Amino acid sequence: MADLTHFDEAGNAHMVDVSGKAVTDRLAVAEAAIKMQPETLGHITQGTAKKGDVLGVARLAGIMGAKKTSDLIPLCHPLPITKVTLDLTPDDTLPGVRITATVKTSGQTGVEMEALTAASTAALTIYDMLKASEKGMQIVNIQLVRKEGGKSGVYTADKAR
Amino acid sequence: MADLTHFDEAGNAHMVDVSGKAVTDRLAVAEAAIKMQPETLGHITQGTAKKGDVLGVARLAGIMGAKKTSDLIPLCHPLPITKVTLDLTPDDTLPGVRITATVKTSGQTGVEMEALTAASTAALTIYDMLKASEKGMQIVNIQLVRKEGGKSGVYTADKAR
Amino acid sequence: MADLTHFDEAGNAHMVDVSGKAVTDRLAVAEAAIKMQPETLGHITQGTAKKGDVLGVARLAGIMGAKKTSDLIPLCHPLPITKVTLDLTPDDTLPGVRITATVKTSGQTGVEMEALTAASTAALTIYDMLKASEKGMQIVNIQLVRKEGGKSGVYTADKAR
Amino acid sequence: MADLTHFDEAGNAHMVDVSGKAVTDRLAVAEAAIKMQPETLGHITQGTAKKGDVLGVARLAGIMGAKKTSDLIPLCHPLPITKVTLDLTPDDTLPGVRITATVKTSGQTGVEMEALTAASTAALTIYDMLKASEKGMQIVNIQLVRKEGGKSGVYTADKAR
Amino acid sequence: MADLTHFDEAGNAHMVDVSGKAVTDRLAVAEAAIKMQPETLGHITQGTAKKGDVLGVARLAGIMGAKKTSDLIPLCHPLPITKVTLDLTPDDTLPGVRITATVKTSGQTGVEMEALTAASTAALTIYDMLKASEKGMQIVNIQLVRKEGGKSGVYTADKAR
Amino acid sequence: MADLTHFDEAGNAHMVDVSGKAVTDRLAVAEAAIKMQPETLGHITQGTAKKGDVLGVARLAGIMGAKKTSDLIPLCHPLPITKVTLDLTPDDTLPGVRITATVKTSGQTGVEMEALTAASTAALTIYDMLKASEKGMQIVNIQLVRKEGGKSGVYTADKAR
Repeated sequence: MADLTHFDEAGNAHMVDVSGKAVTDRLAVAEAAIKMQPETLGHITQGTAKKGDVLGVARLAGIMGAKKTSDLIPLCHPLPITKVTLDLTPDDTLPGVRITATVKTSGQTGVEMEALTAASTAALTIYDMLKASEKGMQIVNIQLVRKEGGKSGVYTADKAR
Repeated sequence: MADLTHFDEAGNAHMVDVSGKAVTDRLAVAEAAIKMQPETLGHITQGTAKKGDVLGVARLAGIMGAKKTSDLIPLCHPLPITKVTLDLTPDDTLPGVRITATVKTSGQTGVEMEALTAASTAALTIYDMLKASEKGMQIVNIQLVRKEGGKSGVYTADKAR
Repeated sequence: MADLTHFDEAGNAHMVDVSGKAVTDRLAVAEAAIKMQPETLGHITQGTAKKGDVLGVARLAGIMGAKKTSDLIPLCHPLPITKVTLDLTPDDTLPGVRITATVKTSGQTGVEMEALTAASTAALTIYDMLKASEKGMQIVNIQLVRKEGGKSGVYTADKAR
Repeated sequence: MADLTHFDEAGNAHMVDVSGKAVTDRLAVAEAAIKMQPETLGHITQGTAKKGDVLGVARLAGIMGAKKTSDLIPLCHPLPITKVTLDLTPDDTLPGVRITATVKTSGQTGVEMEALTAASTAALTIYDMLKASEKGMQIVNIQLVRKEGGKSGVYTADKAR
Repeated sequence: MADLTHFDEAGNAHMVDVSGKAVTDRLAVAEAAIKMQPETLGHITQGTAKKGDVLGVARLAGIMGAKKTSDLIPLCHPLPITKVTLDLTPDDTLPGVRITATVKTSGQTGVEMEALTAASTAALTIYDMLKASEKGMQIVNIQLVRKEGGKSGVYTADKAR
Repeated sequence: MADLTHFDEAGNAHMVDVSGKAVTDRLAVAEAAIKMQPETLGHITQGTAKKGDVLGVARLAGIMGAKKTSDLIPLCHPLPITKVTLDLTPDDTLPGVRITATVKTSGQTGVEMEALTAASTAALTIYDMLKASEKGMQIVNIQLVRKEGGKSGVYTADKAR
């Protein structure tokens, strides 16, 4: 069985030593989605100006969430993030909103957790903004879809799964 | 269409005034799950002592995440949380881990977001601890399952959905 | 000369004891303004959709800034804020943007610093969003305009000053 | 009209990609001032030892505020600050206190926002320390006065404005 | 053997439920000391004005540290602190500095951890300020000396220990 | 008398300019201990599974504490930490727990404060977990034991002191 790098040989948690790793450009893309009733989705799609900009608030929350990753995830290294974008797209077929977070850095460890944290924070914020309308929304399928940089090279999620 | 309380009549985001609401005991329970390969789950279930306590780290991260909710979710009110518990249960049928977060407060607004944030932070931490073994894990079904207190009374998720 | 409550008799800074003060409803309103060139203001006023929502981002930053007040101002008490709103109004006569922040709580100390911090954070964020266009913007006239609650009752700024 | 770098082509806010920018030494200097009644200023100038060190507290708050900039300003990049100084000078002609904040880093983006945040946090802290004496103080003229490093080279504020 | 309240019956960590506890006035006093060479202590005692105010910086750090307690100590409840004071006294007989932190709240749990965190943060800050002069300083005897309020009543440390 | 680098010539605190210092690999090791009654220590040593993993919680708190150092210690530079480990060893001869924290970075300043903060946060967390059993525990001997990197080279504490 493979090794879990977040534990030493005695099984104790530690923040793993990355000081010997090369500084390389790194990118990670993560996805999430939030499912809701069609009427709830209507709050988002029918007129940003009058109803309030749910996606604009969630986008900012996701960007700021990426910056808090090493504060939230105990064994994450603090990283100088160089880019964060969030794409939030209403999708009538869910129905709900699809979220894609992209994070870049130039550093010694990857930014998978930053991208995943950005996506989940945006999804949680959408829930918060709309929960007065529907408490039964579900956040689904938070996952890493792409990773570049570092020793392990490019990773792409098997979408067929 | 119902009103979104996080926006005023002009559609501008605000932190809604709760100063006129009663201080009542409030509880929220949220769920999440993280799916992984059976071998990845084996890292968790086969011997905490030697492999490292993945669930122990995730449980703490979830508890601490609940305390950061108003820092992460832009329009959440800061609340004096009085209880946080996280139940993390390996489930071979997923395969993966099922997460239940329970949060209580005595205050003027509910703790749904605190429970959802605790559950999602625990799930993200499990991902972080095991990602050296499997990058394709998926966080699924983050949802509110129960809410007590406040004007709207008891809410229970329709599990059949 | 009056006493400065943030120091003890020996002149040492302390967080003053408010445990004997009554819990009352408290409100504070603060103002700020940011002056810029007419062309810079045009970025804000000519089409939110295409240009990007400068005021929406600044509004959220102000709300979140209010929640960070006791973390920023060394001797401020942490307070359970119950309301935050920010009004951001472009004003061609400045030219620039006028900001009004309103904060409420039910507690043992006032929320002047929360309102002032919200207003200044919103102003700083407007600067950040527009600085690629103009570095010479000036933030002016951050001040308390109204305060209610507590022993000292209602305060209103002398606008004629 | 020039482009606002904090938005993409669709007008959505993002943390702009700086990964392709050179790492250079960067410096920013920002100013602020806080105006007050002569008697209020007397609390500061007449004997630090006995009255309490208002400027010492404000100086520290400004330094710590600089470190919180990327947490306060939504689209700011986190930066490894290498220097922060705050000069706080009582000025009888205001009357009040003049604040100058200087911040340095070696990085891919400038530190204007760090310097402006340091100056405004120091000014807010002076307000907090003296508000028991005077609620009508005004923070004025927060502005960038100098910027070095990066593609755009040296910027100096036009003082005559 | 007594029960550890921070674990449930299965031995899992949780933030214990205090929602049924009475809101009472609570106070805690904690002590710490930092030992150093006589010459190092001289930096503190010989002229605050010229040498820089080591104790003033440490006092503020302790006050702000008390406010961060629930962020640092995983299972601590967030609490609305109503008072924090730090007494810092040079002592030639150590030689070094003696620190006493006093914290009050009106709440459902005690403030022992807030007082201990304030004292240790002040001690760490003194170390930071003086480490250019002496790296061998030692922080000693961080302990709770008094606790009031709550079910268990008054606790006083046995000084003879 | 040597110079205190955290103050300028006028005695004002500042975050010292390190922009001219070389980026080198740096390491710091700090120690702490917490003394308690033998029965209290028994809670830790007699069966992690049933009693709850006191040392596991404290270890995580120490790691996360290291990441908060520049937020706690006013004049510390923010640093990209590349490794944190905490060794926590029960010692019947104290009786109590001995703590060793090791922190690495590649940067322009050392990580002494990060190692000391990690050790003290772990000790405070052990106190918190066990205080229901014994309030009289004492944290003792927080000190730097080793430092590598930077202009001053290797430092080792004189253990005979």
